[in-house]
Amino acid sequence: MSDMPEHTRNVGDFARLDVDRVRRRGYPEAIYCEGKTIAQVEAIAGVLDDEHPTLFTRISPQQAEAVLAVLPDALYDEVARMVVWPPQEPEVSGVSVLVVCAGTSDLPVAREAMLTARYLGRSVDLLADVGVAGIHRLLEHEEALHEAGVIIVVAGMDGALPSVVGGLVAAPVVAVPTSVGYGAGAGGIAPLLTMLNSCAPGVGVVNIDNGYGAGHLAAQIAAR
Amino acid sequence: MSDMPEHTRNVGDFARLDVDRVRRRGYPEAIYCEGKTIAQVEAIAGVLDDEHPTLFTRISPQQAEAVLAVLPDALYDEVARMVVWPPQEPEVSGVSVLVVCAGTSDLPVAREAMLTARYLGRSVDLLADVGVAGIHRLLEHEEALHEAGVIIVVAGMDGALPSVVGGLVAAPVVAVPTSVGYGAGAGGIAPLLTMLNSCAPGVGVVNIDNGYGAGHLAAQIAAR
Amino acid sequence: MSDMPEHTRNVGDFARLDVDRVRRRGYPEAIYCEGKTIAQVEAIAGVLDDEHPTLFTRISPQQAEAVLAVLPDALYDEVARMVVWPPQEPEVSGVSVLVVCAGTSDLPVAREAMLTARYLGRSVDLLADVGVAGIHRLLEHEEALHEAGVIIVVAGMDGALPSVVGGLVAAPVVAVPTSVGYGAGAGGIAPLLTMLNSCAPGVGVVNIDNGYGAGHLAAQIAAR
Amino acid sequence: MSDMPEHTRNVGDFARLDVDRVRRRGYPEAIYCEGKTIAQVEAIAGVLDDEHPTLFTRISPQQAEAVLAVLPDALYDEVARMVVWPPQEPEVSGVSVLVVCAGTSDLPVAREAMLTARYLGRSVDLLADVGVAGIHRLLEHEEALHEAGVIIVVAGMDGALPSVVGGLVAAPVVAVPTSVGYGAGAGGIAPLLTMLNSCAPGVGVVNIDNGYGAGHLAAQIAAR
Amino acid sequence: MSDMPEHTRNVGDFARLDVDRVRRRGYPEAIYCEGKTIAQVEAIAGVLDDEHPTLFTRISPQQAEAVLAVLPDALYDEVARMVVWPPQEPEVSGVSVLVVCAGTSDLPVAREAMLTARYLGRSVDLLADVGVAGIHRLLEHEEALHEAGVIIVVAGMDGALPSVVGGLVAAPVVAVPTSVGYGAGAGGIAPLLTMLNSCAPGVGVVNIDNGYGAGHLAAQIAAR
Amino acid sequence: MSDMPEHTRNVGDFARLDVDRVRRRGYPEAIYCEGKTIAQVEAIAGVLDDEHPTLFTRISPQQAEAVLAVLPDALYDEVARMVVWPPQEPEVSGVSVLVVCAGTSDLPVAREAMLTARYLGRSVDLLADVGVAGIHRLLEHEEALHEAGVIIVVAGMDGALPSVVGGLVAAPVVAVPTSVGYGAGAGGIAPLLTMLNSCAPGVGVVNIDNGYGAGHLAAQIAAR
Amino acid sequence: MSDMPEHTRNVGDFARLDVDRVRRRGYPEAIYCEGKTIAQVEAIAGVLDDEHPTLFTRISPQQAEAVLAVLPDALYDEVARMVVWPPQEPEVSGVSVLVVCAGTSDLPVAREAMLTARYLGRSVDLLADVGVAGIHRLLEHEEALHEAGVIIVVAGMDGALPSVVGGLVAAPVVAVPTSVGYGAGAGGIAPLLTMLNSCAPGVGVVNIDNGYGAGHLAAQIAAR
Amino acid sequence: MSDMPEHTRNVGDFARLDVDRVRRRGYPEAIYCEGKTIAQVEAIAGVLDDEHPTLFTRISPQQAEAVLAVLPDALYDEVARMVVWPPQEPEVSGVSVLVVCAGTSDLPVAREAMLTARYLGRSVDLLADVGVAGIHRLLEHEEALHEAGVIIVVAGMDGALPSVVGGLVAAPVVAVPTSVGYGAGAGGIAPLLTMLNSCAPGVGVVNIDNGYGAGHLAAQIAAR
Repeated sequence: MSDMPEHTRNVGDFARLDVDRVRRRGYPEAIYCEGKTIAQVEAIAGVLDDEHPTLFTRISPQQAEAVLAVLPDALYDEVARMVVWPPQEPEVSGVSVLVVCAGTSDLPVAREAMLTARYLGRSVDLLADVGVAGIHRLLEHEEALHEAGVIIVVAGMDGALPSVVGGLVAAPVVAVPTSVGYGAGAGGIAPLLTMLNSCAPGVGVVNIDNGYGAGHLAAQIAAR
Repeated sequence: MSDMPEHTRNVGDFARLDVDRVRRRGYPEAIYCEGKTIAQVEAIAGVLDDEHPTLFTRISPQQAEAVLAVLPDALYDEVARMVVWPPQEPEVSGVSVLVVCAGTSDLPVAREAMLTARYLGRSVDLLADVGVAGIHRLLEHEEALHEAGVIIVVAGMDGALPSVVGGLVAAPVVAVPTSVGYGAGAGGIAPLLTMLNSCAPGVGVVNIDNGYGAGHLAAQIAAR
Repeated sequence: MSDMPEHTRNVGDFARLDVDRVRRRGYPEAIYCEGKTIAQVEAIAGVLDDEHPTLFTRISPQQAEAVLAVLPDALYDEVARMVVWPPQEPEVSGVSVLVVCAGTSDLPVAREAMLTARYLGRSVDLLADVGVAGIHRLLEHEEALHEAGVIIVVAGMDGALPSVVGGLVAAPVVAVPTSVGYGAGAGGIAPLLTMLNSCAPGVGVVNIDNGYGAGHLAAQIAAR
Repeated sequence: MSDMPEHTRNVGDFARLDVDRVRRRGYPEAIYCEGKTIAQVEAIAGVLDDEHPTLFTRISPQQAEAVLAVLPDALYDEVARMVVWPPQEPEVSGVSVLVVCAGTSDLPVAREAMLTARYLGRSVDLLADVGVAGIHRLLEHEEALHEAGVIIVVAGMDGALPSVVGGLVAAPVVAVPTSVGYGAGAGGIAPLLTMLNSCAPGVGVVNIDNGYGAGHLAAQIAAR
Repeated sequence: MSDMPEHTRNVGDFARLDVDRVRRRGYPEAIYCEGKTIAQVEAIAGVLDDEHPTLFTRISPQQAEAVLAVLPDALYDEVARMVVWPPQEPEVSGVSVLVVCAGTSDLPVAREAMLTARYLGRSVDLLADVGVAGIHRLLEHEEALHEAGVIIVVAGMDGALPSVVGGLVAAPVVAVPTSVGYGAGAGGIAPLLTMLNSCAPGVGVVNIDNGYGAGHLAAQIAAR
Repeated sequence: MSDMPEHTRNVGDFARLDVDRVRRRGYPEAIYCEGKTIAQVEAIAGVLDDEHPTLFTRISPQQAEAVLAVLPDALYDEVARMVVWPPQEPEVSGVSVLVVCAGTSDLPVAREAMLTARYLGRSVDLLADVGVAGIHRLLEHEEALHEAGVIIVVAGMDGALPSVVGGLVAAPVVAVPTSVGYGAGAGGIAPLLTMLNSCAPGVGVVNIDNGYGAGHLAAQIAAR
Repeated sequence: MSDMPEHTRNVGDFARLDVDRVRRRGYPEAIYCEGKTIAQVEAIAGVLDDEHPTLFTRISPQQAEAVLAVLPDALYDEVARMVVWPPQEPEVSGVSVLVVCAGTSDLPVAREAMLTARYLGRSVDLLADVGVAGIHRLLEHEEALHEAGVIIVVAGMDGALPSVVGGLVAAPVVAVPTSVGYGAGAGGIAPLLTMLNSCAPGVGVVNIDNGYGAGHLAAQIAAR
Repeated sequence: MSDMPEHTRNVGDFARLDVDRVRRRGYPEAIYCEGKTIAQVEAIAGVLDDEHPTLFTRISPQQAEAVLAVLPDALYDEVARMVVWPPQEPEVSGVSVLVVCAGTSDLPVAREAMLTARYLGRSVDLLADVGVAGIHRLLEHEEALHEAGVIIVVAGMDGALPSVVGGLVAAPVVAVPTSVGYGAGAGGIAPLLTMLNSCAPGVGVVNIDNGYGAGHLAAQIAAR
């Protein structure tokens, strides 16, 4: 509708990419694929520039196929439901990020967080299956916890892990409840409430299953 | 059961069309298709008169096919899940309606609102993908906002857009939460609550994903 | 209305004491005082026999005063909101019960659990303020945890303690969420959901703030 | 990451088996299969030792097939959604467990509880379809109720059975709400709340449909 | 605003009594006092005619005092929070109503139901404190249950009583959940859900603590 | 397990039919098919006697096929998801039942209610699509409303119909919320709450979509 | 912090009045008093100019006293919990607003809506106590309903009134749920859900008890 | 129970101070006063050492008086409900923290956040009453937003402010929902859900009204 300097890039009449975001915030916009048609995702893939890696999140296999047809060298991580293009990891800066994950079933979300922080320029490690039902599994890694600059904790079920981790370290904790679990408080409500009520201060919570948001926030915190 | 002047038109023993509605309210009844069988929708299509456009809302592709077999020149909008017959748009009257939509995924609901208001006789424009995460995308269109007689704001996720739009204009805002989003407050509860708690007065809320209701209310407000 | 052998003892027309309960279940009925008038509680106090200690739970100071006027040697524990008469502790039998309590604010509920189990004939100890935000406070007492026959864990806020305790021991854990906390999941909903979703098996949950129920269940489990 | 004596057995980089659990708690870890890929479950099946029966819970037919390919003599109970390996039942010890089940539709959960307690070394019986709408069906079995050392009560819909059973016996009751039912309080919320509010003390509740947790807790209580 | 034959009697500009209700429905309108000012209740008391007993429900002591000043011979039942004028009970007709009440704390609601049905012309009895935790207390009265034409069951906590009563009799059961209880499902939500999910058919539910509604419905059912 | 006179008829080890129910309550037990396997439903069909019609409710097409193989002359109503055997309607007694239904989409539940009451021996009529958005459609039938002995009102969406119907008649109203609708309060919660809060007394509510329960309760009320 | 032309007027360091709002939106900002200290409200009262009436909403008697000390000629409406200064009503413009109110207890909210619309320049009438339990009370006023330009419907309990009113008229309806009621859906949740699910289109909903928001929105709609 | 080097300092038998926390986490433990008796708070005040400022949070006036009697030079901030001792602010380090607050009523929580971050060694500024209903009030301060190292955003009602702020800056945002508001989503649920669903990434959420937690987390993030 207007012909301003490019702050916004129109795609058809259905999307306005916020291309100003890198200048304004330092981080590029990601493409949230849920609820978009394959044609819309494909059209967006066709107008990207390659200055910064663009993340397609929550992408379905069908959507990913369409994007890969347009951008054949893009990275596709099926577990994390992510496509990244261009696929080169940016140079690492800032302090390190550690992703800690309570159970094996929480891995997809943990992996989405890991990839996001990595493609926003941070060094990231992942420590899996260290839930509190066998607390020694966590305490064996106390040193790694103390060395991290930011810790992302991913947990479903009782969501108790961030309280314990938060109580051990100086670094800020980004807590991600997952929808792993069933029964009362299913869909992630139980671990979400647990994390919001953490008796250890220093825990910031993102939405259920929001690995992308956790990775983004951790990357911002870890920036120096 | 009775033979009154036609206020009600019986279809089989399962439906009583409220044919009196145009006289009483000025707007014809729409056919809400969810939960109706294909045979029921088809039978209703067979008894319509062509004085006013009748809207079939939330119509499935199978139901639409059955209606189009009976009314071959009807308009079918797959995105909005609507069939309209007769397909001629009524003459425009009243002030203009602007539909503003936060994200690409909210488009089906926005389109249902747009078509509804248009077929009830209003002039309608649509402005897509102007969510508050890049507020400049909205502010670039401040003039269009000020010119509208009524504004329909469609948003999922945080549902923050109606508060910002409502704070900028004199026109009434009809807010439609969508079920776009996930996790805590999924299914549209989060944007619904946001909109009901709008810190800007002048916002009337309809049910989640209720594009039809929003378009109808806006058309009534915009009538002169 | 009937003149059976005494299974039920009528008090006015408002209460029927289940005096058969000791024979049937091995444990006497308690008097839940919330929602009863002072006159009703007083009248019940007047018809008790002294074969087994009767517990008045959730008793208000005014109700307690009325009971003590009738039964002057009764024990009144203001913190636990309990009156017991006769006040002599029964002989100890069964295995031992350990009450573990996350924070100082959870003490009233913990104390209600402790007194209940003690007056049903168990040996009970209490370990206070060992929440998971400083996990070493709990681990210092690992030996006591291993020695207990049953463990009652009382916690508000994130309710994470039963998962950690349950993961350390062979004994069954009775978990009591408390209404300590605020905000999302207030009133005890957050710790209740955490406990129901404990990733460590072996945790049975009672209602929020239900110290009496926890003590009773623990006493039954610890019976030999 | 460390080479400690074996407390934890790493499986790929996605699982850390808590092999220390038998020493620490007296009961082996189970493998919760929901949310794990077939490859992950298969890999775990490949590293088990045969000292104690390992339970794979909530296993899908596809996952079960993969496990049985690795462990051909494992027991597969399709109703209970469980695989057990090695399939030999351990020697019986402790007091007996009785599983009582309100309706036929609650049987899968009841069966999961029964198998769990049995494979943890207890003697277990099952009494099906004795809901409170025909209370005589339950009362006919009062003797069996009095003889049990622990009673697991499984119920959906109104969840009223544990209150009635709990009021009849000295033994502790482990109550399992099921997701059987519909409408208000569906998904098991209605029976869960009923059980937490049982007017008979002596009832410990586990999560909705958590037959495994109920069987484990009952086995711990019944241990002598 | 209009001068119709008296269907409606205006009181100031704040109330329109539905004086047509006896003709239309056979039962007079009651005055729900919560949220009305003392002056409003007093003014309404001043315009009543004495053809049928009028019930003031949920009346506070201050409101009652004001009504009694206007109608000195009115009946005031403090427990049921009711004033009735004129105080003469109407002639009895129809079949009998039995009010069954689970605990002493449920008595105020039970009494409101009893008085309502009685002042609408039914014969009513009350059976108190027969909750399911001691099921024999109920079964002792099975004959009375079988003789009643309609049974009102009032219960808080687990709300299990209507399922058991409903399973024993041919008469319809009107179930009233009460707000007696605490913790999960407090405020009456737990017994409300239990009653809606009753596994015995033949149970109609009214709102939490709605003794008036239960008594009114029972009176209509019992009319002959 | 016991050989009593036949109060209970065991089917395999998974069901105990309450064959005593007709003697005790006057109405036979129905078979709720959801959550039962096809084999279980088939086995139950094989042990029925033909003294009273047995209702199979919420039956799936596959389950119905299995039952019809055993009982070829049974009545199968696909809309109401019901099978009845033997298919002869019992003699009519008592006063009449009127089923009133707000929208076409509520018909399956209305039909389940109608068939249930009819097979329990009542005369039943059905009035469809008379929702409050066109109140004249209802008021045209005021005479039929006044003549009914009991009225079942079935409504989804706003659930406003029972309040209006209840305000017009002397007969008791059985209200059935349906899961028709979407958005806030979906799944029937919105009409359920509306009906529980009906400003007209005389409305008893059953669970969402519980046409069977409504028909059963109405039949009991209408018995004379 | 900045010295711009006056868009914002700082009051101490705790408030920034949006004095630009009249220019931008055509309506002045109101002062929401809940959660403000008496000193803060008083300070704000001291910096107002008299160009447009300023509304203090949800004002407590103590806050009102403090404002009246500063602005002695202000209008104080205790029922509506409002102070207005200057107290002169603006000239009337636009079409008329009708406030319809279901019960006497809903009057405070109705009155807040009425005063708000009036002080924003509209002609407003109020029709009280016309709930749907006696539908004739409403239908007697059908003419007044048809003449209104906008209708505000205020209702608690079942919240059914907007569906019926909306079904009768061409004018848009602004629906305000109130917290009048108790039990299930208390606090206004029941009428809120009813209104959002209105089966009559043309209903825009504001937050529970938000009379101010309803009056403001109606005034905007009625502007010409 | 043990005499270890001082990791834990027992206070009576009701509290175990986590004096090891500074060594372990770099930040001292705070005393959460809600639910503690005056005597307990007083006793804790008596055993503190003065190496680091100790924060008493959510302190009541009575509790504060008791602490000030023991520690007369402590700082008491009534608005923030905080006592700090010793009252000297620590040396400033790290990057700066900016607290942004939507409305005047949110100030107590904002102030608690500000004091917490300040006493943990950060430089903190506060910007009040810049809610999104008048977006220009926020945009006037865009420069201050860009300069902050961490931004705490405090908002009730619609909770829309963090989405807008998060969309403008590179710094991480800590979002605090407040219980300011009423009606649907009251008690802070509405802004909590809005913040968890923020369409701008980079927002970490703490519990409702948890100013202390927000200040602590911000201080950790801002540490360098």
